[in-house]
Amino acid sequence: MSDNGSISASSVPRSIRWEDGEGGQLYILDQTRLPGEVVEERQDSAEQVWESIKRLKVRGAPAIGIAGAYGLVIGLKSLVDLDIQEFVTQAERIAAYLNASRPTAVNLSWALNRMLAFARSNAQKAGTSALLHKLLIGEAKLIHAEDRAICRGIGESGEILLHDGYGVLTHCNAGALATSELGTATAPMYLAFSRGKRFRVYADETRPLLQGARLTSWELKQAGLDVTLICDDMAAYVMSKGLVNLCIVGCDRVAANGDTANKIGTLGVAILAKHFSIPFYVACPSSTFDLSTATGADIHIEERDPEEVTSFGARETAPKGIKVLNPAFDVTPHELISGFITEKGIVRPDYRENLERAFHRWDAVE
Amino acid sequence: MSDNGSISASSVPRSIRWEDGEGGQLYILDQTRLPGEVVEERQDSAEQVWESIKRLKVRGAPAIGIAGAYGLVIGLKSLVDLDIQEFVTQAERIAAYLNASRPTAVNLSWALNRMLAFARSNAQKAGTSALLHKLLIGEAKLIHAEDRAICRGIGESGEILLHDGYGVLTHCNAGALATSELGTATAPMYLAFSRGKRFRVYADETRPLLQGARLTSWELKQAGLDVTLICDDMAAYVMSKGLVNLCIVGCDRVAANGDTANKIGTLGVAILAKHFSIPFYVACPSSTFDLSTATGADIHIEERDPEEVTSFGARETAPKGIKVLNPAFDVTPHELISGFITEKGIVRPDYRENLERAFHRWDAVE
Repeated sequence: MSDNGSISASSVPRSIRWEDGEGGQLYILDQTRLPGEVVEERQDSAEQVWESIKRLKVRGAPAIGIAGAYGLVIGLKSLVDLDIQEFVTQAERIAAYLNASRPTAVNLSWALNRMLAFARSNAQKAGTSALLHKLLIGEAKLIHAEDRAICRGIGESGEILLHDGYGVLTHCNAGALATSELGTATAPMYLAFSRGKRFRVYADETRPLLQGARLTSWELKQAGLDVTLICDDMAAYVMSKGLVNLCIVGCDRVAANGDTANKIGTLGVAILAKHFSIPFYVACPSSTFDLSTATGADIHIEERDPEEVTSFGARETAPKGIKVLNPAFDVTPHELISGFITEKGIVRPDYRENLERAFHRWDAVE
Repeated sequence: MSDNGSISASSVPRSIRWEDGEGGQLYILDQTRLPGEVVEERQDSAEQVWESIKRLKVRGAPAIGIAGAYGLVIGLKSLVDLDIQEFVTQAERIAAYLNASRPTAVNLSWALNRMLAFARSNAQKAGTSALLHKLLIGEAKLIHAEDRAICRGIGESGEILLHDGYGVLTHCNAGALATSELGTATAPMYLAFSRGKRFRVYADETRPLLQGARLTSWELKQAGLDVTLICDDMAAYVMSKGLVNLCIVGCDRVAANGDTANKIGTLGVAILAKHFSIPFYVACPSSTFDLSTATGADIHIEERDPEEVTSFGARETAPKGIKVLNPAFDVTPHELISGFITEKGIVRPDYRENLERAFHRWDAVE
């Protein structure tokens, strides 16, 4: 990792990579094979991208959106000889197809709709399908670059929280693998590290799907950071030993009062952090704030398949027919959160007031 | 389960079973095959018992001690024609051999030493090896019966804490499988259930070794209780939803001030319980109090093999060479503990005073 604020491609793993030339090449890091195998797959068709999204080879809301946008231009690559109206119609068809790979992923439909809107409003100006395809590649690259910039902005906002000798605890994977380049929760860590700060990271393994063990500990280790993997039920022990000075997690949705939905287990970390007087921060793009949701009580918690808890690969680890609770998320109440690290700065309490103001003027933030 | 305070053999699984006749038969429930297969193995030699202890077919401090005592009489079964002095010498040899199966298990050496002391002091009175063997069987059964009585006593002390409609959360396995009959943390649950109280139990799966998933949820379900399995990082969610009214866990060692060492993750549960104002109790035999240890700071925490965290059966779930912390236990400070449920009653704060008094007169307890 270089020291001038730019992170070299060789250090932080990239979930998605685009190469120009020959109409463009899209590469996706197959996350289902991590950490055992590190395989980047070239994506040669919309069908292949559909599969990659469906089978979670690419995951994490921002990364899925970026993959969808690039997937659309990959699917259109062989259609540049079509009449421009027919080309736009085909773009709509492919976008609808790609969107069905993970219909509940808001970022996917957002990115595809943005690409389609761009195609429609630039069709006439472009004149030919070949040129419109080039412009669409530019738009997909812009979506990618914007996410990179947001991650970097989160990193810039948050890296001041990290100091030499610190211990930082994170939960789940809000890292490079879920986004582009620096991740959200990991962005302050990557930036601080690139600027020479040396600290320890504790990665909760994050049951039931082990994103912390499989993904976070892997990407941080790849980038050269000092990372230690722990089981979720060891977080209190690590904190009690004075090894943790700071917690940073990502999030899925923030309500108007600051209540925050994130991966199951986040609430527990926040409560432990409060008990041990450790600052607990949530890192997220400002787009994650949903002021139309008043409080965390209005956030619906999805229940997932019990088998995620009762078996491990093919191996059953619990009695047949045992009752299971498997909530995908929990809600951390705002009073447990020290601040939100966004690309525009750190938002601190009172959240109801400061988030409202921040959505108009970002002078409410540091 | 019957309603008169006696729990029927068919409901609560038994880790160890002894049958009289033909010099006695010892059966051990192979816990390494749970919950997939329920197999009780007859133990025909000291070597087989050694293997059963070594390979964790029988586990849990009290159960290991009981298995060791019975293992000794199984090993002596074919030696009853020996001269009595030679018989005692052989008993010493077999006891030393059995003790090496798990050299750090205090209960194992305690039970074997008690058996040897009994053999030495009763050899002359018995006269023949055959009679001394019979007396030793009686002593092993007494050790077993005493543990059963202690578990029942813990149940009697604690069952008043349970009420209809309650939710009870437990961590790891301090159940029938770790002891005899009712377990420690589970004893109040089994007794309350047998007396008609109806409540829900939440069993933390307890990473890394999943004793909650494999053992606790299995034995409670076998006995007909309403048990729900959760991942450790879901405990805060379940508590936040108001589903938990009481926590009961077991323990390995209690210091003079009430600080308590128990399976890793216990501290986290205690902190969450405090946050949500949920009573948090530790169930244990009075023999678990170690007044020679002043505070939890004096309790050494054993680190276990990193592979318990990084792989699952043959499958690796974390990057090769990743740093891991894998403490076997954590220490819950006394101020987080509502009380100790013992066979002699519930001990409440101030622990330094009440534990001291309790070790002389048990009138300090309810």
